[in-house]
Amino acid sequence: MTNSEKALMLHEEWNGKIETTSKCTVKSREDLALAYTPGVAEPCKVIAKDKEAAYKYTLKANTVAVISDGSAVLGLGNIGPYAAMPVMEGKSVLFKEFGGVNAFPICLDTQDTEEIIKTIVNIAPAFGGINLEDISAPRCFEIEERLKELLTIPVFHDDQHGTAIVVLAGVINALKVTGKNKETCEVVVNGAGSAGIAITKLLYNYGFKHITLCDKVGILTKATGGLNWMQKQMMEITNLSGKEGSLADALKGADIFVGVSAPNIVTTEMVASMNKDSILFAMANPVPEIMPDLAKAAGAKIVGTGRSDFPNQVNNVVAFPGIFKGALEGRAKQITEEMKLAAALAIAGLVSEEELNEDYIMPQPFDPRVCEAVSNAVKSHIL
Amino acid sequence: MTNSEKALMLHEEWNGKIETTSKCTVKSREDLALAYTPGVAEPCKVIAKDKEAAYKYTLKANTVAVISDGSAVLGLGNIGPYAAMPVMEGKSVLFKEFGGVNAFPICLDTQDTEEIIKTIVNIAPAFGGINLEDISAPRCFEIEERLKELLTIPVFHDDQHGTAIVVLAGVINALKVTGKNKETCEVVVNGAGSAGIAITKLLYNYGFKHITLCDKVGILTKATGGLNWMQKQMMEITNLSGKEGSLADALKGADIFVGVSAPNIVTTEMVASMNKDSILFAMANPVPEIMPDLAKAAGAKIVGTGRSDFPNQVNNVVAFPGIFKGALEGRAKQITEEMKLAAALAIAGLVSEEELNEDYIMPQPFDPRVCEAVSNAVKSHIL
Repeated sequence: MTNSEKALMLHEEWNGKIETTSKCTVKSREDLALAYTPGVAEPCKVIAKDKEAAYKYTLKANTVAVISDGSAVLGLGNIGPYAAMPVMEGKSVLFKEFGGVNAFPICLDTQDTEEIIKTIVNIAPAFGGINLEDISAPRCFEIEERLKELLTIPVFHDDQHGTAIVVLAGVINALKVTGKNKETCEVVVNGAGSAGIAITKLLYNYGFKHITLCDKVGILTKATGGLNWMQKQMMEITNLSGKEGSLADALKGADIFVGVSAPNIVTTEMVASMNKDSILFAMANPVPEIMPDLAKAAGAKIVGTGRSDFPNQVNNVVAFPGIFKGALEGRAKQITEEMKLAAALAIAGLVSEEELNEDYIMPQPFDPRVCEAVSNAVKSHIL
Repeated sequence: MTNSEKALMLHEEWNGKIETTSKCTVKSREDLALAYTPGVAEPCKVIAKDKEAAYKYTLKANTVAVISDGSAVLGLGNIGPYAAMPVMEGKSVLFKEFGGVNAFPICLDTQDTEEIIKTIVNIAPAFGGINLEDISAPRCFEIEERLKELLTIPVFHDDQHGTAIVVLAGVINALKVTGKNKETCEVVVNGAGSAGIAITKLLYNYGFKHITLCDKVGILTKATGGLNWMQKQMMEITNLSGKEGSLADALKGADIFVGVSAPNIVTTEMVASMNKDSILFAMANPVPEIMPDLAKAAGAKIVGTGRSDFPNQVNNVVAFPGIFKGALEGRAKQITEEMKLAAALAIAGLVSEEELNEDYIMPQPFDPRVCEAVSNAVKSHIL
């Protein structure tokens, strides 16, 4: 049986990777009278007077919604809300298993921005946080920004910020290994979708001064046609020297490549044209922008991918469970830029100086310290 | 410590009466690769081709949403979505514990009919059924009817139909005890809200010919002012003889009283004016329309209430878990009138001829046969 067949068989066996489970017993009339009527009226009355008490008496305290419209699922594209379900259930499993956070999948039968926003606002009372997932760009930017304005619970688009946090963690440790300096490093981000843009923003906010954003058309400039509003906004903080040309042109003399783009589009020649001790995060999945052995042979010092069968896996699971655990425990109203930076530093900090080397810049996803460290980092930045 | 204090303390301890639990283990990279990427892509691809496969590979197969806008919660009234949470969580617990059905509470931050309908349609993909709860009349009628047209999963407003099913079950057995005949019985339903109207409809569909619907103003007639559209509709099947007057007038010579109204509004004089061997379901909670001992002393043969400390408790928990279990297992697209009648007969049938007496017309809520019997009744009526 292939792994694909096994995965399909298991999904049929599970028939739902999560379930809802009662935390209270209802085996007698007395139980029923406490958990349901008439006893249940007591917390209701307290919350009716003070909405905040919902955190004390209901699952809002420790529960997030994992919400997608199915418009940009994995590498599968716009497969719709039904087909997105297994992914959102999987994400919900990871929230619980890695972060102890309850999560429930909500797949939306609309891809209209206004309807998505309205629907999420309407269902927000039961949740302590909203994890957006697999929503296509540029709609995802507006949906997240508007929801942050409308809601007083954390809203976090993991494809953007989870990825950005983990990449930054890897970059921080890669700088340590190579002795490179963030102020002088030339960074190329390839793929100007949700992840690429969030990565660019977070690297910029961390202190990188020279970032070039590329997409299918090559280097993006203020003059590039067809940019969406968010890409235009990025032209204010990237490519300040006004480079033009292809991805190959961008990579000449670059120190860091971050790819969230397409398989096999980086050649060994391109890697060879980069600066000494170059750092590559080739995260196209399952086939990266360049295979690690090729990149290394061409002169790369550090290569990370999205895959677990190569060193330096960039895996969001080291970020999002701790992010929400910390935000929920600290009752944060938003996930701020400071929290994201602190989370990246916390993840990077889990690789000790002795362990740190070109093939070990990331903590293991199953390292139990990860969630706690990220959660504490987030909590220490709640205003 | 009073029971109220105990209920409040327990709710704080639980801090959410349900949680989401993983059905698969993710302890290794191999686990992760099967439950999440890349393995999860396999069921996604199958569902993308055939939406129905969501029932095979996701929790849709066995999960309902328990949805309220908090507009008519218990006896507490319009307390809003946050304060409604403990009730919806409690209901979710009962779905799981009594029916083995996963349920998740969704409390809506809107009381606008159109927005409620749109929101529920938008979140429907993850759910196999929609249980509406504690939504005020007459909005609840329109919301339910419109959702039934728009969705292909069962939509069931439990305050209406769950109550109606259990009342009908009690009435069926009460007829057996008293030897009364549904075709000739005079029935008075007091309270023309969601429950009263649903009860009236189901009794009518079961074959009662003479039903009088009363509300605060007394007997409702075609000429009564201020009736909502659903109450007007009910005037086509009730009070066909054109009675006028008060509740007391309605009860003169009546055989059956069903109250979903207010405490202590039925007097011993009113009961004494009813026919011999009268049957009363006095379901105002926690204080019934008349206390059972008073009603019996005044000549009632059978008295049921909503309370567990008197005989003949009318408790929805004998209906809704089995209703949804059956509907989900049989993949019903709607809960039909036939299913509701079959469920009532199934519930009534669980009281054997030997057990049946004036103080024992209902099976016990904790009787494990109940859910199975109701579920089978529903399944046998799926077209």
